[in-house]
This record gives sequence, C-alpha cells and structure tokens, in this order.
Amino acid sequence: MKKIYFKNLKEYFNQEITIEGFVESIRDLQYVQFMVIRDITGKVQVTIEKNEDNIELNNIVSNLTVESTVKVNGVLLENEKVKLNGMEIIPKEIIVTSKCLGELPLNYKDSKSATIDTRLNYRFLDLRNEKNLLLFQVQTCLVNAMREFCIKENFLEIHTPKLIGAASESGSDVFEVGYFGEKAYLAQSPQFYKQMALASGMEKVFETGPVFRAENSNSYRHATEFTGFDIEMSYIKSYVDVMDFEEEILVYALSAVKEKYGEIIKELFGIEVVVPTRPFPRIKLEDLYKELEANYGFKMNFEDVGDMNSEAEKLASRYVMEKYGHEFVFITDFSAKKRAFYHMRENGIPQGYDLIWKGCEITTGAQREHRYEVLVEQAKEKGLGKDVEFYLEFFKYGCPPHGGFGLGVDRITMLLLETGSLKETMFLFRGPSRLTP
Amino acid sequence: MKKIYFKNLKEYFNQEITIEGFVESIRDLQYVQFMVIRDITGKVQVTIEKNEDNIELNNIVSNLTVESTVKVNGVLLENEKVKLNGMEIIPKEIIVTSKCLGELPLNYKDSKSATIDTRLNYRFLDLRNEKNLLLFQVQTCLVNAMREFCIKENFLEIHTPKLIGAASESGSDVFEVGYFGEKAYLAQSPQFYKQMALASGMEKVFETGPVFRAENSNSYRHATEFTGFDIEMSYIKSYVDVMDFEEEILVYALSAVKEKYGEIIKELFGIEVVVPTRPFPRIKLEDLYKELEANYGFKMNFEDVGDMNSEAEKLASRYVMEKYGHEFVFITDFSAKKRAFYHMRENGIPQGYDLIWKGCEITTGAQREHRYEVLVEQAKEKGLGKDVEFYLEFFKYGCPPHGGFGLGVDRITMLLLETGSLKETMFLFRGPSRLTP
Repeated sequence: MKKIYFKNLKEYFNQEITIEGFVESIRDLQYVQFMVIRDITGKVQVTIEKNEDNIELNNIVSNLTVESTVKVNGVLLENEKVKLNGMEIIPKEIIVTSKCLGELPLNYKDSKSATIDTRLNYRFLDLRNEKNLLLFQVQTCLVNAMREFCIKENFLEIHTPKLIGAASESGSDVFEVGYFGEKAYLAQSPQFYKQMALASGMEKVFETGPVFRAENSNSYRHATEFTGFDIEMSYIKSYVDVMDFEEEILVYALSAVKEKYGEIIKELFGIEVVVPTRPFPRIKLEDLYKELEANYGFKMNFEDVGDMNSEAEKLASRYVMEKYGHEFVFITDFSAKKRAFYHMRENGIPQGYDLIWKGCEITTGAQREHRYEVLVEQAKEKGLGKDVEFYLEFFKYGCPPHGGFGLGVDRITMLLLETGSLKETMFLFRGPSRLTP
Repeated sequence: MKKIYFKNLKEYFNQEITIEGFVESIRDLQYVQFMVIRDITGKVQVTIEKNEDNIELNNIVSNLTVESTVKVNGVLLENEKVKLNGMEIIPKEIIVTSKCLGELPLNYKDSKSATIDTRLNYRFLDLRNEKNLLLFQVQTCLVNAMREFCIKENFLEIHTPKLIGAASESGSDVFEVGYFGEKAYLAQSPQFYKQMALASGMEKVFETGPVFRAENSNSYRHATEFTGFDIEMSYIKSYVDVMDFEEEILVYALSAVKEKYGEIIKELFGIEVVVPTRPFPRIKLEDLYKELEANYGFKMNFEDVGDMNSEAEKLASRYVMEKYGHEFVFITDFSAKKRAFYHMRENGIPQGYDLIWKGCEITTGAQREHRYEVLVEQAKEKGLGKDVEFYLEFFKYGCPPHGGFGLGVDRITMLLLETGSLKETMFLFRGPSRLTP
C-alpha cells in the first residue's frame, strides 16, 4: 500500500490507517499523552489516553524521544478541539522504527540559534527545517520543468565527462586529479563537450551536472562545486535566439514553481514568485553604464570597464525594476577582452550576454564561433595553445552555427527563495574550507 | 521560426522553405547537381540544374565539400523519380554555414573501418553515425522516463557533492584530488548522501550524476567515470518494496522507449525492445547455483561463493530465459561477507539483491541498516573506522527505515541496444588509459 501523505489525511476520517513519520513533539500528561508526528507534507496529532488498555502504548510513548521515527496504526477522528488541523489519531499500535539517541546538537527549527558553520556540520539535521525541505521540493520542480521544456523542444540529454585530460579554458582555477600515475583535471564546465555534441549532429543538447571551480573565493554566491544546467543549440540566427530561448525556459519553469508552490513559498519564505513578462529588458553595457551614472552616480572601476562587477549587477537590477518593473535584464555588448575566446564576434563585439536576476548574474550566453580559422585566431589572441587544440579539432569537419548558455541551479534557487547564500541553498555546500559532511 | 525537421518535410510540399543540415553527399554532373542534406531526423535531396540563372548556386555547390553545413532556401517539390523519399528542393539560395576543411580522418558510416581507439579519438565524427545519434535519443528517452516516474511518485531530486573529504566505502578505488593544499576524493557513489537526505526527512530521493571509480579494469562494462541513476526511499517494509519499485520504473521506462523508438531500433540495431512482464523472476543465490550446476554443469569458484561472477551472471540470464522466457532476474540472499556493511541483515542474510539483465548485473539494491548501533557493529566487522564516522552520525538522531538502488545509465543503454561495450555507448568513454577527447 502507498504511504499516506499527511496533507491528504482528511480523506481518511473514521478509517483505520497506518502512518509513518518523525516524532515532532511529545507531551506526557497525567491522564493523556500527545504526540505530533510529521512527514514531508504536514503534521498530525496522536492521542493516547492513559488507562489499563493502553499500558503498552503508554509505555512506548513514555520511553520515546523526539525526532525518533514511528509507525502508528489507528483510527483517524475529526475533532474540532484539536488545534492541529482538527483531527487526531487514536492508536492501536505504535512501532518505534528508529530511535533518536540523544539531544539534537542543533536546534534545526531556529536557523538563528547556531552559526552557519555549525549548521553545515550538522546539515543532515539542518535540512529538517521545513524551509529547507520546501527548498528542495521547489528546486526539484524548477529543474524538472526546465528539462521538460528541453525535451519538448527535441533536445538530447548528454552526460559529458568530468574527468578531462587537459585543463580546458583556463588552467588556474582547475582541480587536479591523480589518474593512474598521470594527471587529470575536473571539468569547469561542459562547454567544449556540448559544442562537440553539436558538431556531431545532435542539434540541441542539455545537461544537468556538477561543475568544479578551484577558486579560493568565499563570496555568498561561489562554491567549488555546484550543479550546472547547460544548453546548446544548433542553427540559431544570432545570440538573440539564445536569449529568446532562455526567456521561454525561465518563464516555463517559474510558472511551474508558482503554480505548485507559490502559496507555500509566500507563507514560509515571505516571497512572491514572479513569472516574468516577455521580452525581458535588454540593454547594451555602455548604455547601462550611462544609466547607472545618471541615475545613481555610479562609475565603473577602470579595471572592470567592458565588463560588470557585483555592484553594477545590483544597480542594473535596481534600474530595470525602477524603469520597467522587471526582475530580469539582459546585458549585451561586453568587451571582447572580457569574454571567452569561443564567443562569436561581430565588428569586434562578442555576440553574447549576461542575464542578471535580482542583482546577481545567473547566465553567460552567446553565439559561439563555429568557423575553424576564426576560432583558431581568437584562441591565439587569448594566449591559448595546446590545451584547446583538441577542442579546435571539433570545428574542422563541419559544425552548425550554434549558441547556448549555462545556469547555476543552486544560484537560481538561492535567488528565487532569497536565501542569501549558497551555503543556505545547496544540499551540501563545498567551499575552499568545506569538504564535509 | 522553428527549424523544420526533415522527417516532417512532406507537410511542406510546394512551399518555399528554409532547411539547415549537414551535406551528406554531392554529385556534380554535366547538366545537374545533386546534394543530399541530413539533419538528425532524416535526409532530403537538393537539385540544382546547371544553367545561366543558377551560375552562382552552381559555383557554390562545385566548391562545396561533404560534411559542411548549409542553409538552403527553396521550393520543396514532390517528385516520384527521386529515390530519397520522393521529394526534392529546388533552391533559390544556398548559404554555406560551415565548411568541412578536408577529408574526414574517419569513415564514421562504417564502424568497422577503424579500430575502436581511432574511433574514440575522433568521437566527434564517430557520433555522426546514425546508430550513435539514435542511441542518445533512446538514452534521453529512457532516463527522462525514469525521472518522470520518480517525480510522479513524489521523489525529490538531489545533487550530492562529488568532492568528498573522506574516501568513503573503500579507499582503494578512489581518485584523489588536490584541494587547496589538502586532499579531497571523488565520490564513488551518492550512497551515503542519498541516505543522509532520508535522515533529513526528504522521504524519497533520486539523483542522476557522475560516479567515479579508480579501477584499473579494462572490461567491456567498466569505465572510470559513468552516469549513475540512484534512488532511495523511506518507510519501506523490506527490500521487496525496492525490487517492486525497480520493476515498475524499468517497465515504465522501457515502455516509453519501445513506444517512441521501438521501430527504428529494430531497423538500425536489429533489436526488439522487450517490455518485461511483472513480477521479474526472483531466485536465491544458493538455489541459482544449484540450477546452474544441474542445467549447465557450472560450479562457482571457491573465492566467489556467496557472490556472483560474470560467468554466473551470463548463465543466470540464460537460465531465466530458458525457464521463464524473461530477460531479467533478481538474485537474492548473497553472503554478508560479499556485501557492503550498510546492507540490512536478517539472520545474517543481507536484505538485498542484484538485478541481472541480458547476462550483466545492472543493479545492487537493498534495504539499508538504519539502526545506529547495528550499523556501527557492521562497519566495525568490515574494518571500517574513521572514514565512515561522519556517515554513522546521520543515524543517531532518528532515521526512517529505507532502501534503494543504483543503475548505471550507460550500462543499461549498452544492454538495451546491445552495443557490446561501454566504449561504444558512452558519449565520451573514460578508462584507465583514455582521458580524451
């Protein structure tokens, strides 16, 4: 028989049912015992009178510890007097399926009661917080909707290798792996391989998988390992097609989240999920600079000119919100110096964009350079040699015009629910000084 | 405008359309030129008469190389005389979107024309083989159906870290990573973390992601990195629930594949996709031994007693096919000595199974031991100490009874399409002496 979810309990009034869950609380009074049991969908009260018939049950409850797991068989009654959902279970049998062996080292219900490091040390308890459990339901819904959209659009799913023989785009931020006496590296992105898939004729591909960055950075939005959602598609006319596609997939995914979890997100996180209108505002980097200076007196640091920095991202979002009432903004026309060699250029301008959401960059997308000779030139210009040779090969024997983008799954979840940091968002955060649990 | 897929071309007769694809072949005759263009769904002929009006087009085609990509605008005509699908495009414009710069170093159409190593070196060309392109369409369908099934059953998707601080289950077969002057390791499976998710109250979880095995093995079914599909679920009654679930998900996924690709798989691979009947045959290891000895004179090697080996797996499949006409068989009641410490035992017998398909093990599944004290004992018995301490913590503060299994996505694709080896199946194979491209 399928498990009964607690949110559906009212379908079972006056029936004998079996429920399973964690013991949320126990009150052992003079004449009666109350337990609250929870599952991932809700809570229910179990009421056990203290009397001779119930001696066995009473003993079990007396010896029970909160956070143990139990299986309870009994009759579900409607009872207005019970504050918790107006119902209670009168048990016939209680089986303790696992026992919590001591006091919890973390009060997971109050995320302010411990430092983030303590909470991460006990992440398996911290995740019991109802907001955290909701977060992964929301993320599941979000990522699933994005994949669903790709599948409907005839994308193929690929699983590209994470163990690679050369240090790809830039050697500095890559993890080195011992590989049978040789060296391997961990892929910083599936970029080269998703392009390879298109050169192979796969036309449109997506991947959900880990990416690794050996950056010794401790910002709220960086991790040494995170989950990327990457897409790449052939036969585009320009990077505008890529932006259009990204709008479509985000609208689709955020609609799915809002429909399924909009209410409960508002309740637990105090956040209104906004399904963005299309098209998203699009602005050239130079024009953005002008607006930010005119509106907020902001001037770009000299070393960041042609690019964004985190302050510019925040202000860009403020600007589009004030001007267009929009949470998203595409920034285009970055400087070629600040962009990867594989971005296509027209008149020297990279044919790509950054997408900013709620003050944070979530995507770099672009049309890619697919013409072998041009690509070789651009690689040379960036000082890239032997490490990208294998990649350049992909373009020698015909390759469709194409483009794509990558999204950080954890980062968009962080922004969607405004958790404030990847440490609060990831199933298990990984940073320069965090490899456990 | 959306790309027109070649399989749908007959909807466009007598219309001016634009198509894009690879140049499959060129015939440049005295009075006429023919090109065949292909996309991922089919092929179409483009016919260009040689005359004064067509000089520009004729020049383009004369200078064109096969495997280049082109964009062709023209009118699609029905023409019975054209062998290829009875249609042809009379072009107005041909744009060469990428040029194949030389002769292909691999005849990808004939997989026997080169050694497997040459083919893997040029995997980006090898994948252009229509069987390979079909393979990834089938795999996309298969994995998507498995996930769809999980989502319908209220599973949450998790993305567990691949960078881990301790060498988990067994230190020998694990890759070591340099991590900011310290050591990290690559996860051999998400086992511990998916169990952690259940201890956190997530109830049911799945993950699709890479797993890493530093095994110096060169068999047809081993790779140092492959894609795992893992599930774990709470509140099971016994490992029988896990077997039942695995049957359900496989039936669901194979049905989806058969429905969408059954015909074309038969055509290109010569294989009948069989949706298995439920329940799958289930047999205890000792009883299997007896049957294999009685039927085939097979006797287990002494060092493998209590376990399977690859010959036993082959014969087990032969046996269930001969006896039950079934492609699948669950083997239960392995020896505790041969099974991981986290498998639950009853009377000393591990509460788990292997699932064999077409002569090859595809899954190890089990109910897990969720009781802290018992788990500690079983870890000690296997000589596991410090490295699993963090894992044992997960079970101290309540954890539902649970079980699950893992499947190798590449391996089931290999068996489904009978490609014979993972090298022929994976997007990019990784082995002890293969890290490229």
